[in-house]
Amino acid sequence: MNVTVHGRTRHYRTVTFDRVRNAVLLVEQRLLPHEFKIVATRHFRETAAAIRDMIVRGAPAIAATAAYGLAQGAVAFRGRGLEKFSRHVEIVYQTLKAARPTAVDPVNSMNTVRAATRSGKTVEERQALALAAAEEFADEDVRHCEAIGRHGVKLIRNGMRILTHCNAGWLACVDIGTATAPMYAAQAQGKKFHVFCDETRPRSQGATLTAWELAQQKISHQVIADNAAGHLMQRGEIDLVIVGSDRTLGRTGEVTNKIGTYTKAVLAKRHGIPFYVAIPLSTIDWHLKSGFDIPIEERHESEVLGAWGPVINPKSEIRNPKSDTGVYVRVANPTSGARNPGFDVTPPELITAIITPVGIFKPKELWKHRRQLGFAD
Amino acid sequence: MNVTVHGRTRHYRTVTFDRVRNAVLLVEQRLLPHEFKIVATRHFRETAAAIRDMIVRGAPAIAATAAYGLAQGAVAFRGRGLEKFSRHVEIVYQTLKAARPTAVDPVNSMNTVRAATRSGKTVEERQALALAAAEEFADEDVRHCEAIGRHGVKLIRNGMRILTHCNAGWLACVDIGTATAPMYAAQAQGKKFHVFCDETRPRSQGATLTAWELAQQKISHQVIADNAAGHLMQRGEIDLVIVGSDRTLGRTGEVTNKIGTYTKAVLAKRHGIPFYVAIPLSTIDWHLKSGFDIPIEERHESEVLGAWGPVINPKSEIRNPKSDTGVYVRVANPTSGARNPGFDVTPPELITAIITPVGIFKPKELWKHRRQLGFAD
Repeated sequence: MNVTVHGRTRHYRTVTFDRVRNAVLLVEQRLLPHEFKIVATRHFRETAAAIRDMIVRGAPAIAATAAYGLAQGAVAFRGRGLEKFSRHVEIVYQTLKAARPTAVDPVNSMNTVRAATRSGKTVEERQALALAAAEEFADEDVRHCEAIGRHGVKLIRNGMRILTHCNAGWLACVDIGTATAPMYAAQAQGKKFHVFCDETRPRSQGATLTAWELAQQKISHQVIADNAAGHLMQRGEIDLVIVGSDRTLGRTGEVTNKIGTYTKAVLAKRHGIPFYVAIPLSTIDWHLKSGFDIPIEERHESEVLGAWGPVINPKSEIRNPKSDTGVYVRVANPTSGARNPGFDVTPPELITAIITPVGIFKPKELWKHRRQLGFAD
Repeated sequence: MNVTVHGRTRHYRTVTFDRVRNAVLLVEQRLLPHEFKIVATRHFRETAAAIRDMIVRGAPAIAATAAYGLAQGAVAFRGRGLEKFSRHVEIVYQTLKAARPTAVDPVNSMNTVRAATRSGKTVEERQALALAAAEEFADEDVRHCEAIGRHGVKLIRNGMRILTHCNAGWLACVDIGTATAPMYAAQAQGKKFHVFCDETRPRSQGATLTAWELAQQKISHQVIADNAAGHLMQRGEIDLVIVGSDRTLGRTGEVTNKIGTYTKAVLAKRHGIPFYVAIPLSTIDWHLKSGFDIPIEERHESEVLGAWGPVINPKSEIRNPKSDTGVYVRVANPTSGARNPGFDVTPPELITAIITPVGIFKPKELWKHRRQLGFAD
């Protein structure tokens, strides 16, 4: 999407590839929203470190980064013989896989790239095929997000006030995003609407990443405390909710997403407000039979007990130039601990429908449409 | 309640009076939870400044502070004649009233003190009566909180996990608190229980003040993000919710409290978890006929867009001694704005019952019991 730096607006993807330098180019997301910077990783080990250190985050974005990283590693091979090449690629694969050991998306994307190389008869052919497959993987992610936008745009009417939670925007994908795709499509059609971004404590991805995206895209928006959505719904100030998902169960329609999503779904149900989940096909889990089987990651309590950001004067809104990179402040009582579940599970009866690249489905009808949704059983 | 400073445990009230120095003694709440300090205001204008600058906050605590401030001003009068005395008291009254112009509690408490002085026949008699009335006002607040504890303690069973929101603890009152009163009473009876403190963004009073109170009192507790309660309820990890209230409508049973309270009530209802509101009699509004007539204060957006605290190393948990007083960090995207409603209204059908100093009542039965609850129509 577009980013304006020093008054110049340019289109960027979250992750791209530079063939000349054999480098993966990534938006350095840890600096956002306070600084926009593209970093180039010139070696697959550097790419793995970028994944591990969360320069890039969001399942589709990590998947594309790993796909490019595998191609990058393959292209860098300077030895001779297909056997040595395969052994090298295996090292690259394992290195990238170890960067986020519990994530399934980078493994899937690397499997796609590796499989594509097999038809090559020489090292050079396989290198070219790996790069082409990684590019195709990234392009397909963009096409899928565009398709989510095409389907979801019908839900947005002029004047609507839309709530979103966490960041399921282009920074989490290669471009466009999932929950944000219908918004960007509606903007392109000239529709006017306003977005409330839940702050999304404890990591505040709504206040930081989603708000930054929408500001860059010049979409009318405001940040709200996670506590405020219920009140706004009560006063009739929210018309539609669109969120993303980290894992959606294809068999049950249960949606795992950032902690707090379930709460918003309960509130939307009470107020008769449509609640949509926008997902790429890769986040559908066709195996698990119950949301209660989804392990909920318990994260470090320091996230709940404090906050990150650059030090500024809250009255003047002038930033202290010495602290642009941000500091951690302890907000909570220093002798108290915290619970910090990272995700929650929203049951299908609270979800109006799920927006996918191939159409909009009731959550309980995903299974019926599993062929269309790419499940090969 | 008890506070431990440098290993020594002592009992403190949020607000007390020092007759020798004619000073109001206040817990400096802006430094909590990072520093405990008592400040003495030696002049009624200083006391008014303490109210205005939020050294003291919470309706009952402000009411007691204003009552003491009025007595303090009256006692400081050095002129002659009842007429001059009355003019002086009027100046004191108006000065204290102007410190928080929209608050009704300090006006009520000062009216009580002023009315009590009228039977005095000399300046000295009236000064003594003012001080006695202020002391009586503060003592009555403590007795009322104790009574809330006596009634509410029956709701807490061994092993319960209790959720609370914001701070309705002793720091908001003269002592003991409202929502916390049943917890302190249960602790005194030897009951074991665990409290989850909602962080309560944007001002984080749960993570700062309530967590500090419970830590001082050695009650088992953890801070959670406001987003996490829904998930914990879903997993059966919350048995009871107790919150306070800034204004409860006696005619309808609607409860105004810190933003996010309504959301917790909706979640509790869905999960069949009892939801109680603990209130002092002074917060019952017998006049308004609908919660929608309650003006909801829209506060400064900087609260939502950032956070306050001392800078520490989140990994080592060692504080930077140079930054104990805290800094403001901008968390959100610097070019985004925010909505910041300060309160919300919970309808009576979501409230199991209201715990008052005179007993526990269904929210819709407050009106029926209005005589008992102190309403003189």
